[in-house]
Amino acid sequence: MKITAVEAIPYAIDYRVPMRFASGEVATAEHVLVRVHTDDGVVGTADAPPRPFTYGETQASVVAVVRDLFAPAAVGTSVLEREVVRARMHRTVGNPVAKAAVDMAMWDALGRTLGTSVSELLGGFTDRVRVSHMLGFHTPAEMVAEAEEMRDTHGITTYKVKVGRRPWRLDVDVVRALREGLGDDVELYVDGNRGWTPTEAAQALEAMSDLGLTYAEELCPADDVLGRRWLSEHSSLPQFADESVTTPAEVTRELLSGAAHGISIKTARSGFTTGQRVVGLCEGLGVEVVMGNQIDGQLGTVCTAAFGAAHELTSRRPAEASNFLAMSGDLLAESLTIEDGELRVPQGPGLGVELDEDALAHYRTDT
Amino acid sequence: MKITAVEAIPYAIDYRVPMRFASGEVATAEHVLVRVHTDDGVVGTADAPPRPFTYGETQASVVAVVRDLFAPAAVGTSVLEREVVRARMHRTVGNPVAKAAVDMAMWDALGRTLGTSVSELLGGFTDRVRVSHMLGFHTPAEMVAEAEEMRDTHGITTYKVKVGRRPWRLDVDVVRALREGLGDDVELYVDGNRGWTPTEAAQALEAMSDLGLTYAEELCPADDVLGRRWLSEHSSLPQFADESVTTPAEVTRELLSGAAHGISIKTARSGFTTGQRVVGLCEGLGVEVVMGNQIDGQLGTVCTAAFGAAHELTSRRPAEASNFLAMSGDLLAESLTIEDGELRVPQGPGLGVELDEDALAHYRTDT
Repeated sequence: MKITAVEAIPYAIDYRVPMRFASGEVATAEHVLVRVHTDDGVVGTADAPPRPFTYGETQASVVAVVRDLFAPAAVGTSVLEREVVRARMHRTVGNPVAKAAVDMAMWDALGRTLGTSVSELLGGFTDRVRVSHMLGFHTPAEMVAEAEEMRDTHGITTYKVKVGRRPWRLDVDVVRALREGLGDDVELYVDGNRGWTPTEAAQALEAMSDLGLTYAEELCPADDVLGRRWLSEHSSLPQFADESVTTPAEVTRELLSGAAHGISIKTARSGFTTGQRVVGLCEGLGVEVVMGNQIDGQLGTVCTAAFGAAHELTSRRPAEASNFLAMSGDLLAESLTIEDGELRVPQGPGLGVELDEDALAHYRTDT
Repeated sequence: MKITAVEAIPYAIDYRVPMRFASGEVATAEHVLVRVHTDDGVVGTADAPPRPFTYGETQASVVAVVRDLFAPAAVGTSVLEREVVRARMHRTVGNPVAKAAVDMAMWDALGRTLGTSVSELLGGFTDRVRVSHMLGFHTPAEMVAEAEEMRDTHGITTYKVKVGRRPWRLDVDVVRALREGLGDDVELYVDGNRGWTPTEAAQALEAMSDLGLTYAEELCPADDVLGRRWLSEHSSLPQFADESVTTPAEVTRELLSGAAHGISIKTARSGFTTGQRVVGLCEGLGVEVVMGNQIDGQLGTVCTAAFGAAHELTSRRPAEASNFLAMSGDLLAESLTIEDGELRVPQGPGLGVELDEDALAHYRTDT
């Protein structure tokens, strides 16, 4: 069970259609595959999707920090010593996505070593997650068509709508078109990715007040300290925090300062070990959570589903788990499927999925 | 005045004696020299000291983010368009030291282009800073001897004492030895680099309550949200924030939440452009600041002095500007000197200093 090596392999897979949102655009998944090897010959795997505009990490920084700092922190420990590795990695500030991938690869290796599913090791509350689909910027007609396709093909009836454009009426028109096109039975919520000022956000929320939104996520910059508090105090819609809550301490600060009412949990940035800290914190504080998507590929989506299904709190709401459908290829040997609006947690030891080594050889960019 | 290229050159210079403190140890300055070139043939220079344990940046990540993201953001702009470059770099989260170096190199190039000192462009309040010397972990006798040498050789009479060890009595013994050895005329303050729990910090402060400390800096982890508030509320000594306040928004959060009473400003992490935002914020809020040291070499120290001397608020207290004395070599053609406890801002256009190209060729690690 002793870790003998940690690999960080950069790779690139194009999206069929670029994902566009207020804080950026992603046309190619330039991720880093992290693999943990043990002296039993077990290999645990996880994905690190660098997001310069969200966490400041780049593909180059993830590869470097895993190779130079986190691999030495993990090698020689047992895959059970997750808290040891977490404490060692914690000495390096930031780098959440790199740390999360090392952590989740250790969990995968642990599950494979024990012959047990990671989702069950984490809590085993249920075996599937309902799925929410994220709609990036397009015209109202295109976004309605995409939502209809997701509903008709995959049974998805919950949609996260990207907003935060200027003028904000662009986005209000989209949300109205979605509500009118899809009816009252679908669930809609919006994500501003910090695109609006508090004033714009308040105007847009007022203009959407008849559209039955569930909540609004990260409408204003995380650093608009007082503006976000004002918005959260005056909006009748719960405000969920995402990019502003990358650590448990940030969760605490946003919630206690009144800047947020709910929390997005992303395994891509918290891993499983710190992610469970956030679950404990939010459950203890009596705060709702949503399993968010870091524009993940299939491996990242498996991690989201495994974690989301593991606890009662994280499985209450549909998880954002469908972005992989927009990728032109993937690294998994067997593709995930979403049916009847649900994604089943893959069965089998660890994360329950296997890599396609030929695909990795094809997409990796370091050889 | 148009920027044609931005270089990021990694280099390494050993310290004669490693600097040891609660959050880490620095034995070698593995920094990145950033150079901005303009179409007039002007070259502006600044230093980026990566601190994985403080900001999460590594030498590799700084080189990569400057090369891949910040150089493209700056090339084509005028050296006057600092706000444009700042806004573009702001789209990438974090990476404070890399951003700061690009900003300060632009200021150096601007000063050289205009034939004016950067310190005067920034405000020109005075032409020198008083110097505070930082004492890293050693035995009480060694730390007293180092302080005496600094006083006798350089006229320094203000000392920042690194604390945060376990048991905390180790540090109390040092501070008591310094007070007894140096007398009541020297100024002493302590920096915990997040080494203590709030409980330990409260006990240590109580044990040092007769030693006439000026203030205490970052005794507890930045993420001990409620613990820091409790300590700040109950201590009779002002609590200064450093690692926890790397952005203006973090300054706001720490001050408004009651976790801190004063702010350390470091040009190495804020540059001049964002550093002036912090000055404006703190002056407006009525909060004291100190010019801190990122274990800078001479070029970084010049930036601290230029900025510290530029404003009334930043020149009130002695600046932490003597760490370069512990380095075994440097990149500047002419060495800085500290006399009568003061460091004069180098005269001449820009930052007023020139690189020793032979030294750079010797210490750079990319060739």
